[in-house]
Amino acid sequence: MEKLKEYVSVKDEDHFYHQGAVELLIFNFLLILTILTIWLFKNHRFRFLHETGGAMLYGLVMGLIIRYVTKSPDAESGTVYECEKLKSGPSTLLINITNQVYEYQYKREISRHNVNGHQGNTMLQKMTFDPSIFFNILLPPIIFHAGYSLKKRHFFRNLGSILTYAFLGTAISCIVIGLIMYGFVKAMVHIGQLKQWEFHFTDCLFFGSLMSATDPVTVLAIFHELNVDTDLYTLLFGESVLNDAVAIVLTHSISIYSPKENPNAFDAAAFFQSVGNFLGIFAGSFAMGSSYAVVTALISFMHLTKFTKLCEFPMLETGLFFLLSWSAFLSAEAAGLTGIVAVLFCGVTQAHYTYNNLSADSKMRTKQLFEFMNFLAENVIFCYMGLALFTFQNHIFNPLFIFGALVAAFVARASNIYPLSFLLNLGRKQKIPRTFQHMMMFSG
Amino acid sequence: MEKLKEYVSVKDEDHFYHQGAVELLIFNFLLILTILTIWLFKNHRFRFLHETGGAMLYGLVMGLIIRYVTKSPDAESGTVYECEKLKSGPSTLLINITNQVYEYQYKREISRHNVNGHQGNTMLQKMTFDPSIFFNILLPPIIFHAGYSLKKRHFFRNLGSILTYAFLGTAISCIVIGLIMYGFVKAMVHIGQLKQWEFHFTDCLFFGSLMSATDPVTVLAIFHELNVDTDLYTLLFGESVLNDAVAIVLTHSISIYSPKENPNAFDAAAFFQSVGNFLGIFAGSFAMGSSYAVVTALISFMHLTKFTKLCEFPMLETGLFFLLSWSAFLSAEAAGLTGIVAVLFCGVTQAHYTYNNLSADSKMRTKQLFEFMNFLAENVIFCYMGLALFTFQNHIFNPLFIFGALVAAFVARASNIYPLSFLLNLGRKQKIPRTFQHMMMFSG
Repeated sequence: MEKLKEYVSVKDEDHFYHQGAVELLIFNFLLILTILTIWLFKNHRFRFLHETGGAMLYGLVMGLIIRYVTKSPDAESGTVYECEKLKSGPSTLLINITNQVYEYQYKREISRHNVNGHQGNTMLQKMTFDPSIFFNILLPPIIFHAGYSLKKRHFFRNLGSILTYAFLGTAISCIVIGLIMYGFVKAMVHIGQLKQWEFHFTDCLFFGSLMSATDPVTVLAIFHELNVDTDLYTLLFGESVLNDAVAIVLTHSISIYSPKENPNAFDAAAFFQSVGNFLGIFAGSFAMGSSYAVVTALISFMHLTKFTKLCEFPMLETGLFFLLSWSAFLSAEAAGLTGIVAVLFCGVTQAHYTYNNLSADSKMRTKQLFEFMNFLAENVIFCYMGLALFTFQNHIFNPLFIFGALVAAFVARASNIYPLSFLLNLGRKQKIPRTFQHMMMFSG
Repeated sequence: MEKLKEYVSVKDEDHFYHQGAVELLIFNFLLILTILTIWLFKNHRFRFLHETGGAMLYGLVMGLIIRYVTKSPDAESGTVYECEKLKSGPSTLLINITNQVYEYQYKREISRHNVNGHQGNTMLQKMTFDPSIFFNILLPPIIFHAGYSLKKRHFFRNLGSILTYAFLGTAISCIVIGLIMYGFVKAMVHIGQLKQWEFHFTDCLFFGSLMSATDPVTVLAIFHELNVDTDLYTLLFGESVLNDAVAIVLTHSISIYSPKENPNAFDAAAFFQSVGNFLGIFAGSFAMGSSYAVVTALISFMHLTKFTKLCEFPMLETGLFFLLSWSAFLSAEAAGLTGIVAVLFCGVTQAHYTYNNLSADSKMRTKQLFEFMNFLAENVIFCYMGLALFTFQNHIFNPLFIFGALVAAFVARASNIYPLSFLLNLGRKQKIPRTFQHMMMFSG
């Protein structure tokens, strides 16, 4: 029942001490390099490379180094266990080795043909992208900061356009990309490029929803540098922030919808259930986020009026503010809603209500704290993205598929922007600048 | 060769999404409760319970709840693998389950008689103390902040006393506790209480060095509240901060020294090697920490003079400051030195050199940032300590041993303080307040 193959993996001598220090140090080193580069660029007014690009570039180089320079000390020893008793990977595994039970935690799946590749390179394994850190720790400060530093007046003035772009636009983009990719996949199967895989229509839609999330971070950073018109900035900002949330909810809905028994059939009931699910999740997340913000506002208001010694403890206030806002994200995640939507609206509501109740000291503290956290998280993510290109071990390189995806993305952007802009222009008599449309095309 | 026992562990449905959110939420919840309690206490001037005590209490209650209320959904399924091929737990393990390879990461050892206990309670497993998070993330800001906010004048005026207490005092305490515990252990073996274990003299010394690290956090917090004399405060502060570092280096040295082949023999060469090792590690860490700080000072100075636009980017400055200081800790750890000593002296040097080169905005930012991080980390640690009492799964309760440890600790404190105070009084003609001696006794 149990077979053993020889493989893998080194035992660290000092499990309890140096674990993680080297990996963290590498990230620190990359970030320091990035900051120094940003500094240099800003001083010399270089424009050709944005700081986020720099972070990614450094990550890329580091990924190359880690992949090809660092050797695994003794990669030969170790085992891959063949186990037929378990149906799927349990989150925790107990293993008895020479009368000592060791606990192992689930990390990830490894695709079959990558097992031989660079297993044994422990450094590479440790640097591999960890989604739970990304979602729970790096993402919330960025989105919260976006909501917190939102220019409310401009945002609410353009709310109609923003919502149209975010909801309708993302949905259109998702469906268009999904359809085009389905065509491509069918063609690829036809010419024999896609024998072994199975790409269903829901998989294509899934891919479409993933691709429809435009990245707010880079575009906003560049817009900020270029000092564009505030309305345009707000429009793009609102769209790209909500867009992320919509795309994530959409992705989640599609992944739930996709029925495993009969994946190709279009089930109308399931579709509407999925749409309802989508709206429910969005509304729930919105409610969760704003209610946390309202609680924060109430607490700080209570303390402002009842206890006069508030200004003595700006630390407690800042701490409470920080923790409650983070909790908004985490509760939404724990409840199966989307933390991103929750923390975004939490940020907006915090800025609207709580901010005015804070002491002068706390106002500045919270602002600077979130600014700093946003800055760090952003750069960490871009470094990570650079690193991931070489350290992520499940890459499958297929030029035709990549080409199809590019075409699909461009068509989707076009089919998204022009009709919607036209619609909004008619409906609201508001002139949307042509530059905006072009910018949107690049934001993908 | 391979036997299977039935056990353990649930598969999370959504490995990639909700993982970690619930656990983080629990900590957030505890911290929010703690902050609210602190606020209430400070407003009503309650003195009988310190805030750190509150954090620990809440952690304790939460630990109880997690242990006894949460049930593991299906704890029956799962396996403990008996594996004789491996000599020790590898850091990464690959397991093939129904043609899908899963990667598992080493988490910890589990003592034999606790395997049956509450395995399968995944929540409990996830909440268990993770030393790498504690060392790499929670500890550095606390120690750095201690160094950064040190009152230099008082510190350097009392440097002689502080170093005597820290080095000589900790060494005496370690040896005294070790000797007393060795006596107790011998007695316990004699009356048959300690059949199955083997306690060597080096193990007792190890225990002694662990017990010799007095906790700076609580005592300083209370001193701060009581507004004690600055010299006394500095003396205790310096002692307790260095003491930690000394005890950690001592522990490390003893653990290296303890020869596995012949653990009871006293080897003079190995002893002196251990002492040399101790001094080397201390000096190396000191050099590492200060050199990082000097680099930071140089960079900020360079930018202060060369580029005049510095004040525009306080964020970059703060980021660099933060990352370089953290790197001091991580590099020391990665190089096998002690990060604590490195980050402490990094903080002292940063305060002495870099602080004056910073822009006014960055000065405030860094101060507030480190204050905030210190505050959060401190409370997280105390919550953790409370939680650990019920979630740590390797507890062995032995009243006689605990009694012995208490006696040893008291004797060590007494043997430590009185002779040293006497010595210092003679040598430096400096009157050490009697209260200090009493305080020292409680600080253990």
